[in-house]
Amino acid sequence: MPRVVDHKKRREEVAEAAWRVIERAGPDGANMREIAREAGHTTGVVTHYFQNKRELMAFAFELMVDRSTKRMAEVAARSGLLEALAKLLPLDEGRRREATVWLALMGASLADPGLAEELRQRYRRAREATFPVFRTTLEGAGLGEDPDELADELVAVVDGITVDALTDPERYPPGRQLALLRRSLERLGLPADELG
Amino acid sequence: MPRVVDHKKRREEVAEAAWRVIERAGPDGANMREIAREAGHTTGVVTHYFQNKRELMAFAFELMVDRSTKRMAEVAARSGLLEALAKLLPLDEGRRREATVWLALMGASLADPGLAEELRQRYRRAREATFPVFRTTLEGAGLGEDPDELADELVAVVDGITVDALTDPERYPPGRQLALLRRSLERLGLPADELG
Repeated sequence: MPRVVDHKKRREEVAEAAWRVIERAGPDGANMREIAREAGHTTGVVTHYFQNKRELMAFAFELMVDRSTKRMAEVAARSGLLEALAKLLPLDEGRRREATVWLALMGASLADPGLAEELRQRYRRAREATFPVFRTTLEGAGLGEDPDELADELVAVVDGITVDALTDPERYPPGRQLALLRRSLERLGLPADELG
Repeated sequence: MPRVVDHKKRREEVAEAAWRVIERAGPDGANMREIAREAGHTTGVVTHYFQNKRELMAFAFELMVDRSTKRMAEVAARSGLLEALAKLLPLDEGRRREATVWLALMGASLADPGLAEELRQRYRRAREATFPVFRTTLEGAGLGEDPDELADELVAVVDGITVDALTDPERYPPGRQLALLRRSLERLGLPADELG
């Protein structure tokens, strides 16, 4: 058991190092040697955990999506929809790093069908895992709207604000991102209470 | 005069070649030699028109943004808002290429502050040039809403649908992208007539 735990923990440490290198050098600049150095390992150790760069990129993406959606689900359980979705926006350094990894890998995957497929599968899985958390709220909004349709509209809004804020942080400081999210929730007929 | 025209035309041809290479190989794979080959020139000809790769990438981005916003403005003048904004979504091969160049360069710029600044300036300029086209419609939506705020919400929705459709085309075929755009316009209280 300890070995299994170590294995998992070590893979996550390498993936976190990959995030930092992606943020600094982009997905193309993030080679195995650079990521190993960032993680404080030899390249040999990293290739022991990940066969190749694509496997590491896919896992780095998965870990980021899993953590952020898990955090969102936790907040959704004890606070409102607004506060939960705010956990996905680049409002502080940590979330900005996550969103950067997300957008940089998405962008890079457009010219790499294999990576694109890996990211797509993981993104869909996270989406399906997250949906039940919001089902009650989305169905509660009622008005006879299909909750799946509402969810797609929500995803588009959150993704759009994220892209705009990442690429023009000066124009979209945290308060402005939140204001845009709040107004969108109101327009969708969803609860948009102030952050607690 | 003919020389000036030639110069402009030649730069645009090189930028169009850059689009194709970015679509195929990503911004990092798009080096001057590869772009020159795609354009049917020597590298020397390309470096005559663009001092370095960053200058070429910035111009390729600018040309793409200018053409798509111009096309949108033309449609806005004779058709509705829905049809105009649809000109920005990846609904066919041409627009898909433009959107790919947009997202790939945005993603790459996150680790390249110099390129990020170039793209930001050009994007803001295009946005300001486009805004007057929609001012009447946005003000007409009235209800005392700030047209600038409404425009930001619209931009977020269009950008979000674009990212989602580019990265998961199977889930977001053209009809679904248009349906999402239409519903968003309706929620914003803006005209969302069927395409003519």
